[in-house]
Amino acid sequence: MALDKDETSARILDIAESLIGEGGSANLKARTIAGQAGIAVGSIYNIYGDLNDLHRAVNIRLLDRLAEAGKAAMRETETEGVTDTRLRLLALARAYLTFVETHPVSWAALLAFNREQSTSDEPEDYRKRFDALFEIIAAVLVDTDIPMDDSRRRLVARVLWSSVHGIVTSGYTGHAGRGAQIWEQIDLLVTTFLEGLRGDAGSTSH
Amino acid sequence: MALDKDETSARILDIAESLIGEGGSANLKARTIAGQAGIAVGSIYNIYGDLNDLHRAVNIRLLDRLAEAGKAAMRETETEGVTDTRLRLLALARAYLTFVETHPVSWAALLAFNREQSTSDEPEDYRKRFDALFEIIAAVLVDTDIPMDDSRRRLVARVLWSSVHGIVTSGYTGHAGRGAQIWEQIDLLVTTFLEGLRGDAGSTSH
Repeated sequence: MALDKDETSARILDIAESLIGEGGSANLKARTIAGQAGIAVGSIYNIYGDLNDLHRAVNIRLLDRLAEAGKAAMRETETEGVTDTRLRLLALARAYLTFVETHPVSWAALLAFNREQSTSDEPEDYRKRFDALFEIIAAVLVDTDIPMDDSRRRLVARVLWSSVHGIVTSGYTGHAGRGAQIWEQIDLLVTTFLEGLRGDAGSTSH
Repeated sequence: MALDKDETSARILDIAESLIGEGGSANLKARTIAGQAGIAVGSIYNIYGDLNDLHRAVNIRLLDRLAEAGKAAMRETETEGVTDTRLRLLALARAYLTFVETHPVSWAALLAFNREQSTSDEPEDYRKRFDALFEIIAAVLVDTDIPMDDSRRRLVARVLWSSVHGIVTSGYTGHAGRGAQIWEQIDLLVTTFLEGLRGDAGSTSH
């Protein structure tokens, strides 16, 4: 029985996702997808334009999943009555760390994709996903006693994200005891940075 | 006139470096190197083992160059009489940013190399290069009024490096005005983190 267009499109995306998850973008080959999906190579290009567009579609799914993980972590802290900013930011960092550990190859492929394409040339739809991630962090910063205007809050959210991201990804260049070391670094970063923000807010006004 | 072994080895390394700089590790091909160096393919393997070893040799050269850039930045602050910790750390961050901008492709290839090989399995000689980079940061932290023992100083140096690294590399996923935005983030990170360290040292003892 022939699949309709939506089914074919979903199937291509599933196969593309597992191919990238196994071997990065070098492993994303139209012929392999066509073989596994039981369709003609041309059908892939009819639906997704080119392999780059297909990789982007996989990335969007990954980013949505990461955003969902972040929101789930926030719902959990809420359920548990955790209101402390440091603990809520650490819960987000933990969600990110778990996410990267669960999707090591496809996340590395997404980062390489962004390096190669220059995100500013990417469709609005794609870039909005990154803003959505920073928004989750910024929302935590709204609920603090540290005074910040919107533009500073966006900057702080971005710095927190990039710093935790740097610790998580450069953990790969580490020695033994990687996991524990990474968490110790994340905790130090979040705790010390927040303390600095508070001290700063006390001495000057932003 | 035939080249001696040292000359051949240096020539292979130079060619490998420019190939990686142009197209990453996928561009590092024994046949291309042999053609450009005017030697047999077998000579490459005689000297470097395999292409992985050759890529590592290129990485070591990059890491030594980065360490040199960091040390040069420190000498410069010394000449200018800059003793402020924040300004010295920002000078190191600037050196790193400039380095990554100068070697975007080969630095991305080094990061991918480390992700794929798990650095803890790498030769001591290679891993020591990363420790050397953290040492440059740790040395700045020695000259502060913030009390830290050696192990905490190493941890703080590592967190600073990873955070700045995260900001520099995820700047690639940014929107317009990348350069200025990256620097604003680095400045906020270093300044706020240092302020947090001082606050922390004032309230508790580590």
